[in-house]
Amino acid sequence: MAHFADRLAEAVEAKRNPCVVGLDPRLESIPTPLHGSVLGQEPLTCEGAAALLRAFSREVIDIVAPKVPAVKVQAAFFERFGPLGYQAYVDTVAHAKQAGLLVIADVKRGDIGSTAEAYAQGHLGGAAVDGNELFDLGADAVTVNPYFGLDGIEPFIGHAVRRERGLFVLVRTTNPSAGRVQNLTCKGVPFFMRMGALVHEWGKAHVGRGGYSCVGAVVAGTQPIDAEKLRRLMPQAWFLVPGFGAQGAGPAEVARAFDARGRGALVSASRSIIFAHACSPYDRQFGEERWRDAVAAATDAMIAEIRTVTAMAP
Amino acid sequence: MAHFADRLAEAVEAKRNPCVVGLDPRLESIPTPLHGSVLGQEPLTCEGAAALLRAFSREVIDIVAPKVPAVKVQAAFFERFGPLGYQAYVDTVAHAKQAGLLVIADVKRGDIGSTAEAYAQGHLGGAAVDGNELFDLGADAVTVNPYFGLDGIEPFIGHAVRRERGLFVLVRTTNPSAGRVQNLTCKGVPFFMRMGALVHEWGKAHVGRGGYSCVGAVVAGTQPIDAEKLRRLMPQAWFLVPGFGAQGAGPAEVARAFDARGRGALVSASRSIIFAHACSPYDRQFGEERWRDAVAAATDAMIAEIRTVTAMAP
Repeated sequence: MAHFADRLAEAVEAKRNPCVVGLDPRLESIPTPLHGSVLGQEPLTCEGAAALLRAFSREVIDIVAPKVPAVKVQAAFFERFGPLGYQAYVDTVAHAKQAGLLVIADVKRGDIGSTAEAYAQGHLGGAAVDGNELFDLGADAVTVNPYFGLDGIEPFIGHAVRRERGLFVLVRTTNPSAGRVQNLTCKGVPFFMRMGALVHEWGKAHVGRGGYSCVGAVVAGTQPIDAEKLRRLMPQAWFLVPGFGAQGAGPAEVARAFDARGRGALVSASRSIIFAHACSPYDRQFGEERWRDAVAAATDAMIAEIRTVTAMAP
Repeated sequence: MAHFADRLAEAVEAKRNPCVVGLDPRLESIPTPLHGSVLGQEPLTCEGAAALLRAFSREVIDIVAPKVPAVKVQAAFFERFGPLGYQAYVDTVAHAKQAGLLVIADVKRGDIGSTAEAYAQGHLGGAAVDGNELFDLGADAVTVNPYFGLDGIEPFIGHAVRRERGLFVLVRTTNPSAGRVQNLTCKGVPFFMRMGALVHEWGKAHVGRGGYSCVGAVVAGTQPIDAEKLRRLMPQAWFLVPGFGAQGAGPAEVARAFDARGRGALVSASRSIIFAHACSPYDRQFGEERWRDAVAAATDAMIAEIRTVTAMAP
């Protein structure tokens, strides 16, 4: 192991792209052919739902693992189905690790003190009692909500530093109504810029050899002007940039999240990759039966597009 | 079933107090005698940890169920131990429901669109696919983080309205560093007051017979001046008031969260109740062996103190 920010940089260089595939397996969107092969004719139960989430995530991971440096696993779609769904989440993280990918647990947790520490242990590994490690999910990073301020972030930072993991703190999100909270002007500066300044401050003591911190930020690709301002404000933070593809950001927009060398950002796409069989042009080209080919083609297309803004040759 | 705000009001009147016991079962703090009776001489495993969390929570619930209207279950301390811990969380919620308590799932989730809907389904019940309900945790309410703005709250509100459940949106939290985020002045008003105004706006279309909304707010008991301002700003919101006891708020402080009739707020205490055996004066009075008596005594003492500010006779 090594510092998370350095491991991330190495994985990006090794794959020659900073693309992240978001595993957001909304059950209703999983291709019908897979339903049949996993569940047969049985009516859908909670066990079946968990099996389907697990099988789908596994197949997507196997397709994208040779192509991208990391996946982002969205806990909500697993947690929805209770403990069995939660087991599928754990299995998905484990499978992605075995496939050589870095794993970002997209859990957006936030709490304080020993509660935040419990969340950090639950997702970054190291749930230990009296020095005895009982559970080790082993994701490489988590997404964290900063509403509590430093008290809510510090336990995650401490745990990440001890275990060479990372975190991405929500700063500027992609959703339309985010502006009514994150763009409120606070003493002449938008709230999200205040948060960015805090994240920079929290992360600057935890910088790896490559100049980046293990404390990163979630910065919407759909808000390029904001992303550019945040890039200047937080030169040492890895940005996790959602919003590419289905949510509307293209290469020109996400380009603003990178530093002058075309580094320091991960671009994430979920639905437009994992459910590419239902998105243009792959719906016509492949259809639902060939959903695996659609995942591969959409991943390749995204990588090619993002390479144009990072000046990375294949 | 009925509107969540009305069910809550009825439960408070029935028990003649608005106290909530917070089940935050930090494993290391669970009384040693229970370790022995649950685990015997076996070394602690993940299964054992889950069994201990389940047994402890169950016993606390049975002690407090005749006394208080609701419990708040902190998911982090269960989630820490993975799927087995998560199963213990589900069992704890179910046991509290069977014991006749209202259950607040303290999960502080926050995300957007179908992701937020998945979290709502996972904790407020109704994880349905094609009309077929697969998993039903059945908590009565959840705590929610508002950093995304309305897009992150709306799916929870929609789900709560459909299923007659509630939510408590984080507005002003108890932790010391919260001020650096929540007290930032935005156009002359502290950020938390902006959030309070939004929560009021989001909840006003969903008011029950008793005049309260199913969209409530988390308002720190440790910040009485802020609580008073928020009470005026949000006359229709149930407040969930943490910070009583171990975190330092007394009856005079939490009193500010109530309306003029001494209603509209729930006061929550966690460690000072469930780990009362380690807190003064119960540590000397009962000690660890009689931890159950300490839980009962601490709950009774809290109820008596809170009754003085709500003018509720026993």
